[in-house]
Amino acid sequence: MNACGLIVEYNPFHFGHLYHLQQSRKKSAADCVVAVMSGNFLQRGEPAIIDKFQRAKAAILCGVDLVIELPSVFAVQNSDLFAKGALLTLEELKVDSVCFGSEHGEIDTFLQAYNRFTQHREKYDQILKRSLTEGYSFPEASRSAYQAIGLNSGSVDLSKPNNILGYSYVKAIKEYGLSMKALSIKRVHNDYHEPEINHSIASATSIRNELHKHEHITDIAKETLPDPVQQILMEYKQEAGLWHNWQDYFDLLQYRILTMQVEEIREIHGVEEGLEYRLKETAAKADSFINWMTALKTKRYTWTRLQRIFVHLLLNNQKQTIQPLLNKDHMPHLRILAMNKTGRAYVNHKRKVIGVPLVSQLKKQKSPLALIDEKASNAYYSVTNHDKRSKLRRQELTFPYMG
Amino acid sequence: MNACGLIVEYNPFHFGHLYHLQQSRKKSAADCVVAVMSGNFLQRGEPAIIDKFQRAKAAILCGVDLVIELPSVFAVQNSDLFAKGALLTLEELKVDSVCFGSEHGEIDTFLQAYNRFTQHREKYDQILKRSLTEGYSFPEASRSAYQAIGLNSGSVDLSKPNNILGYSYVKAIKEYGLSMKALSIKRVHNDYHEPEINHSIASATSIRNELHKHEHITDIAKETLPDPVQQILMEYKQEAGLWHNWQDYFDLLQYRILTMQVEEIREIHGVEEGLEYRLKETAAKADSFINWMTALKTKRYTWTRLQRIFVHLLLNNQKQTIQPLLNKDHMPHLRILAMNKTGRAYVNHKRKVIGVPLVSQLKKQKSPLALIDEKASNAYYSVTNHDKRSKLRRQELTFPYMG
Repeated sequence: MNACGLIVEYNPFHFGHLYHLQQSRKKSAADCVVAVMSGNFLQRGEPAIIDKFQRAKAAILCGVDLVIELPSVFAVQNSDLFAKGALLTLEELKVDSVCFGSEHGEIDTFLQAYNRFTQHREKYDQILKRSLTEGYSFPEASRSAYQAIGLNSGSVDLSKPNNILGYSYVKAIKEYGLSMKALSIKRVHNDYHEPEINHSIASATSIRNELHKHEHITDIAKETLPDPVQQILMEYKQEAGLWHNWQDYFDLLQYRILTMQVEEIREIHGVEEGLEYRLKETAAKADSFINWMTALKTKRYTWTRLQRIFVHLLLNNQKQTIQPLLNKDHMPHLRILAMNKTGRAYVNHKRKVIGVPLVSQLKKQKSPLALIDEKASNAYYSVTNHDKRSKLRRQELTFPYMG
Repeated sequence: MNACGLIVEYNPFHFGHLYHLQQSRKKSAADCVVAVMSGNFLQRGEPAIIDKFQRAKAAILCGVDLVIELPSVFAVQNSDLFAKGALLTLEELKVDSVCFGSEHGEIDTFLQAYNRFTQHREKYDQILKRSLTEGYSFPEASRSAYQAIGLNSGSVDLSKPNNILGYSYVKAIKEYGLSMKALSIKRVHNDYHEPEINHSIASATSIRNELHKHEHITDIAKETLPDPVQQILMEYKQEAGLWHNWQDYFDLLQYRILTMQVEEIREIHGVEEGLEYRLKETAAKADSFINWMTALKTKRYTWTRLQRIFVHLLLNNQKQTIQPLLNKDHMPHLRILAMNKTGRAYVNHKRKVIGVPLVSQLKKQKSPLALIDEKASNAYYSVTNHDKRSKLRRQELTFPYMG
């Protein structure tokens, strides 16, 4: 059996994702499409609108064959570490290809960009370092550095978020010597962060904005979401009591910062350069999450970077725990979130060549990565209905959805 | 000027407290009555119904001259450590006497009991240790040990909670060689934990039950509370949005336990004998505070002991921070919560002989004890109205109430 991997968040699954899925299946000619999906917290440092189990189920109902969790240690990171985690996961799964969306849909341009990068790596590093020292944020600094080596236009423009991710995927495949083939398809209506819905293929951001604003699935939102996704979104809200949003976690975050010593805040993954003091000073005055973020933001600390730090704070993720896990160059287990018959057949077919445990439900003994994912779920569900919380948390221990 | 000290919690101030205040003033013939009061968390391991600033103001309006905070490090402890903290505070304040309520109101019986205790200390220690090894809780074990040396009846019955506190006061005076005189007055209608109001002098427990049950001050509750206290209770609820109760902190506590490693839970003050595992196991299933406590309670872990541990968990109080502070044998500062003219005159009169700083508002530089009290306030107000939280917290930094 032949498999193609997708790297996704599905927050929530929409018609753009469906298009990506269908095109990838076609381009790869794979029997099985596997999605590596972020769990309850996402790459840009946000809680997912509904939990990973329901998002995985929705993906299966929309045509994905197998959904594997990208451990949160890798999911809530910059694009390079996110790509590393996702591709190491796909490598352990023995997929034949990975297929991602990009502006041009041509994989060769990414390979050329990577070659250019390796040729000019020294210059890139130099400029990156200088810009960081000057107080620029990492995204800005790396943009300057890419520009300096000619990677800001032409074949691949690395100022576009989806190109950065795609480039990170290609880079990871090269740098970790992975065996899968990289494929790319052209995105349609793909303005990544478009705030409002204006087409049936809309950005996930615009769909979430619409959902949070109205607290129900409006007719406009319905246009953008496959039926099973609408159903699952409604059921989740009914049970958990909410669609998750950062503001729901404001009380917990503020409480945490105000009862931690600065020394403890400094131990949290991502907290650098005296941010521990700034967090404490701004916490006491904030009366909402947005408010707090606005007070915290600086040239160096982008919104996304701060949000990721808030995830690590919420999860009580310490540097000493996270850093060694990020440094590993293989994935110690594969966590199945949902699958259909094809996915099951693939797993059975490959069982002998997959060298790491396939985990379908968390057991008493957990790997360090799984322990952190369990903690992430514990934190994630802390804002749900009291009487449903333990049931929602128990999903970690029960068998995954089988489509 | 001559001063008499009272050791109080005023949760809330009621007619029984007023009686104690008036009788103490009479018995001591003091010019100034000083109350050492627990802050936002109390000896039995509970959040106070309203904050320490409002409770202190109520005390002044009801006739107390000066209210000093008992640092939470000492307040949320067993009777011996609570007594130590309170009496060391009064010692630094240079009061002439301390006056407490007891079943018989005769101080000599406490002194005799103390003498008996010192004569039979070895036997007491032996039996205490044996009972603890057998799995009894500390209160039960010490009750057996007192019984074995004849301190369970007759002159002083140490099975009555108020006698235990009084005895702890006398013991602390003797053991730390303090210079104040101990006085006792007889309590009236003094069933300490009576659950329901049945007299205008009612237990604080019964008054709180009535208030929490009805969420307003019923006619029955009014009978037990001086007018200024009623006023303050209403204003506080208006502003903060609640009268504090453990259930309000359930989300924070459950979230904390479920995102801590067992090794971290073990570092919390009061967590011993594998309780860290029990806390984690029971947390996931609990859907209310009472529920959780019921699941946690064992022969060894009394309700009160568990509640105190929950305070230390909520405040993130680690053993390594708390233990050295408990071992000190003087109070490093005196925190003024409220005062009237007499209280101010007393402080001015004694300023030269008081050897430690008199703190009327927290500054940037804080002693370790004050840092923990600030943290306690931060945690305490975490459940109040969003838009009032920072104002409520700012009380720590502003000048105390002056009656």
